[in-house]
Amino acid sequence: ILYATDDPDVLVQYYKDDATAFNAQKKGSITNKGILNNQISEVFFQLLESQGIPTHFINRQDDRRMKIRRLRMILLEVVVRNVIAGSLAKRLGKESGQPLPEPVLEYYYKDDALGDPLINEDHIRTLDLATPEQLVQIRDYALRVNKGLKAFLEARGILLVDGKLEFGVDARNQILLADEICPDTCRFWDIKTGRVLDKDRFRQEMGDIEGAYQEVWERIRPG
Amino acid sequence: ILYATDDPDVLVQYYKDDATAFNAQKKGSITNKGILNNQISEVFFQLLESQGIPTHFINRQDDRRMKIRRLRMILLEVVVRNVIAGSLAKRLGKESGQPLPEPVLEYYYKDDALGDPLINEDHIRTLDLATPEQLVQIRDYALRVNKGLKAFLEARGILLVDGKLEFGVDARNQILLADEICPDTCRFWDIKTGRVLDKDRFRQEMGDIEGAYQEVWERIRPG
Repeated sequence: ILYATDDPDVLVQYYKDDATAFNAQKKGSITNKGILNNQISEVFFQLLESQGIPTHFINRQDDRRMKIRRLRMILLEVVVRNVIAGSLAKRLGKESGQPLPEPVLEYYYKDDALGDPLINEDHIRTLDLATPEQLVQIRDYALRVNKGLKAFLEARGILLVDGKLEFGVDARNQILLADEICPDTCRFWDIKTGRVLDKDRFRQEMGDIEGAYQEVWERIRPG
Repeated sequence: ILYATDDPDVLVQYYKDDATAFNAQKKGSITNKGILNNQISEVFFQLLESQGIPTHFINRQDDRRMKIRRLRMILLEVVVRNVIAGSLAKRLGKESGQPLPEPVLEYYYKDDALGDPLINEDHIRTLDLATPEQLVQIRDYALRVNKGLKAFLEARGILLVDGKLEFGVDARNQILLADEICPDTCRFWDIKTGRVLDKDRFRQEMGDIEGAYQEVWERIRPG
C-alpha cells in the first residue's frame, strides 16, 4: 500500500502481512512478513544504491513503513533468472534447478486481467510501455542488480535463483529501481541444502513460511 | 511430408489436403488444399528469391510435389505481424483488426509437447536454438519477407495480417527460408471487405475454406 506525504515527490510504502499467489487466486497471511520484507528490502536497496543503481528508496521509517520516491511506474515485471525454476521450467520443458549458463531476462506485461503475459521488446514498443532507450537502460540495470544481489547472497549461503524487478521514471525522467526486493519477489535457496527460503513455501504449501523469511533476514542483516 | 531423393541435398515436399489446428487438437481435410498451397508457395518463394531472400525452393514438380533443399531446421516459428489478430489479440488484450504501427516479430519454440510457447532471445540462446548472429540474420530476413509479401499482396487486394516463417541451415551454414508460405501459415484478409482468406476459416468453422484458398490462388497466379 502507498500513502501520500506532504512532499508530492515522496510516498510511504506500507508492508502488510497479506500474501497472494497465482494472480491473487490464492490468498493468505504470513505473520511478520511485512516487517521482514521491509527490513530485507532496505538492505538490498542500500546495497544496490552503493553499487550505483538508482532506486526509489529514501529510508525506512519504522517496522512497516518505507519512504520512497514517487515514480511513474513502467508496466513491466522484469524477471532475471540464474537457475531454471517456476514458469521457465514449464515454458521450456526443463527440470527446475538447472543453472543457466548466462542470466535469462524476461519481460511480463503488468496486467492482472491478462494474467501478466510474457511479452517481447516488439510488444513493449507496440504497447508503448517503454522506449527502446529505456529498455536498454532497464536491461542493463536488471543484469547489474542481479549480479550485485547474487554475489552478496552467495557470501551468505543463499542462491539467488531468480527475481522480479520493477522500474519507474522520476520527474527528471530518470529510471529508478522500485517496488520491493524480498522473498516475495525473488527465489532464494539455501546453497548447501537447497531449502526454499521464499514465497514458494506459501505457493506450494511447504510450511514454515515465516521461518524461511526470518532465516533470510538473519543471514543478510547488517553487523 | 518430406521424401528423400537420389541427391542427399535435395528433398521432395509433398502437399497433402490434411488440415490441423490448435496444436493438432482439431483435424480435418480441405479438398485440393495441397495443390493450391503448392502453387501458392511456389509463387511466394520465387518472388522472395527474386528479392534476394535465399529459400529452400528448387522447383515445383507436379500438383503436390515441390523439390526443396535439405536443411537442418531451426526449431523456431518466426511470426511477423502487421495487424493484431489471433494469439496477439489475446496476449495484449487488444481488438483483432488493429493495424500495428510497425511490424511485430515473435519467436515460438517449435515443440508440440510444450504447445509451441512464445520465447525471447535469451531463451533461444539458453536452448541453443540459434546463435545471436543467426538471430540477427533471421530477424532481417523475416522483416524483408514480410515487406515483400505485403506489398505484392496489397497490389492484389489482399492484406497480409501476419505470417509464420521457418528457417533452416544448409551444408554451407547459410540460413534459408523454408517450410511453406500459404493460407495455412499466413492470415490473408480481403482488403476491401475484410473477408478471411486463410486457415482461420477452418479453425473457426467459417465455411467455404476451399473457396478462400482458391481465391488467394486466383489473385496471385502469374500471367
